[in-house]
Amino acid sequence: MKSQGRGGRGNAVVLGGPAGSNLDGGIARELGAELVRVHLRNFPDGECLVKIPQSIRGRDAVIVQSTYFPQDTHIMQLLFLADTASRMGARSITAVVPYLAYMRQNKSFADGEAASISALLKVLYASGVDSLLTVEPHRSDALFAFKGSKLILNPIDRLMDPVSKNIRRPFVLAPDKGSLERARVAATVLNCDYTYIDKERNPVTGEVSMRDAASGNFEDKEIVVVDDMISTGGTIALASRFAYSHGAADVSVAAVHLLMCNSAYNRIRHAGVSRIYGTNTIPYENAVMVDLSKEISELLEWR
Amino acid sequence: MKSQGRGGRGNAVVLGGPAGSNLDGGIARELGAELVRVHLRNFPDGECLVKIPQSIRGRDAVIVQSTYFPQDTHIMQLLFLADTASRMGARSITAVVPYLAYMRQNKSFADGEAASISALLKVLYASGVDSLLTVEPHRSDALFAFKGSKLILNPIDRLMDPVSKNIRRPFVLAPDKGSLERARVAATVLNCDYTYIDKERNPVTGEVSMRDAASGNFEDKEIVVVDDMISTGGTIALASRFAYSHGAADVSVAAVHLLMCNSAYNRIRHAGVSRIYGTNTIPYENAVMVDLSKEISELLEWR
Repeated sequence: MKSQGRGGRGNAVVLGGPAGSNLDGGIARELGAELVRVHLRNFPDGECLVKIPQSIRGRDAVIVQSTYFPQDTHIMQLLFLADTASRMGARSITAVVPYLAYMRQNKSFADGEAASISALLKVLYASGVDSLLTVEPHRSDALFAFKGSKLILNPIDRLMDPVSKNIRRPFVLAPDKGSLERARVAATVLNCDYTYIDKERNPVTGEVSMRDAASGNFEDKEIVVVDDMISTGGTIALASRFAYSHGAADVSVAAVHLLMCNSAYNRIRHAGVSRIYGTNTIPYENAVMVDLSKEISELLEWR
Repeated sequence: MKSQGRGGRGNAVVLGGPAGSNLDGGIARELGAELVRVHLRNFPDGECLVKIPQSIRGRDAVIVQSTYFPQDTHIMQLLFLADTASRMGARSITAVVPYLAYMRQNKSFADGEAASISALLKVLYASGVDSLLTVEPHRSDALFAFKGSKLILNPIDRLMDPVSKNIRRPFVLAPDKGSLERARVAATVLNCDYTYIDKERNPVTGEVSMRDAASGNFEDKEIVVVDDMISTGGTIALASRFAYSHGAADVSVAAVHLLMCNSAYNRIRHAGVSRIYGTNTIPYENAVMVDLSKEISELLEWR
């Protein structure tokens, strides 16, 4: 924290945003900082109004606000909060955005398509955010367009803590090549083998076929499918069926961000997944949840 | 248009946003400019992706995107579009935002409350918007925080066109002092008297009592309640009942922005309002609608 050089952590204030409640308390506690929960009013027409209910002049503000669904409303609340903290005379503004929406739209995939994450990072900076911390942002270069200082937490190792307690014969499976590095980290913590599924999309039919890319014997193994997020759960369900068809004894899934949209839970369960592990970047009830308050706070302190 | 000095209007391109469909075609026609409708994809998790489907390099882009409900999503789409148009090499970017959300949050009402419209205007500019046109922005200083050039259309006079055809013994009523200037303009066009209702809110009970502030005899008159917007319709319903209780023969309402939230239509009808007049800044079906394409285009051309 900037505050360390100029009077210690006592100068920092954690501002808990409307979508920050699952992490703001823990972060304030870990930092030894005051917690101020932001007030929110919702109007009949759909507009909201945020309020920081006390002076923060001269203090290092840490806004905690995730941007899960409804993403656009949570983003606007974050922009309003950063602007307000800036106008109220905060010395610095750090935004902790545990789940960062639009991070998969990190380049222009075709001429004329929005690079949505770049546009979002641009306006976050313009609103007064000096530093941005996020968790597992899909690709390591996702924050490229942010002009301030960037902090990224990759908590796959931490996510393996409860997994290691529950599983005796682990084998880590990445559902696609993009998660191979995550699988490697997970396998190192669990001290086991890992592999990935090579997805090939038929360019004509759009159908996805899969094959085991690396060597791997799933017989009698408890497979842990590792990914950055679960959205509709389609990828996870395919991976689970793939693992069982290759002899797996059990399949569980560990993912950082549990978006869980469109009946993802049922889709995954029907594919035989016995347990879901996740983190509290997004609130969710049907999973074993890992609290990231400590890891986020350490990252804030160590910069 | 900047284009006039460098090759005529043919250089302009109107980009119809996902919430611009009721005005983009008319504006393109009036400007004699090409219309390009933006493509929109919606993902299962709630994210959207906009795409400008053809090159706009070197052209003067006019993005038409209103920001009615869901406001925050329509705002994000506008930010994404401005950023994309900028990256695609547009020579200038004008945003036509017929209804501008958050315009009533135009100052910090109390310590720590967000000045939401200022924050929004800041990020619009940061996204690449050079010029901003909006319609009837609640207060004349609402666009103060926008750093680019500003264009404001006040279409109360135009809104009186269909009113004057339907009403023979008009009397204009502003539902509160804030709409007095709008009532004056309307009365001038209709060539009739006008007055306003002096709302007093009991500071203890919060109850609103009303009294006729100026002289005015409603006997046998067809009252036209004039306001900038209808949100829940509560204010309009009170004004209608007030007018009837003072002898009015008929009450209609004319408002620029028809937000019409939370059963506003029924609330107004039950209060005796016989007809609603509005403009197409927001799509709506149960009103006599005035098309503002021509007025908006003239303002764009005359700057």
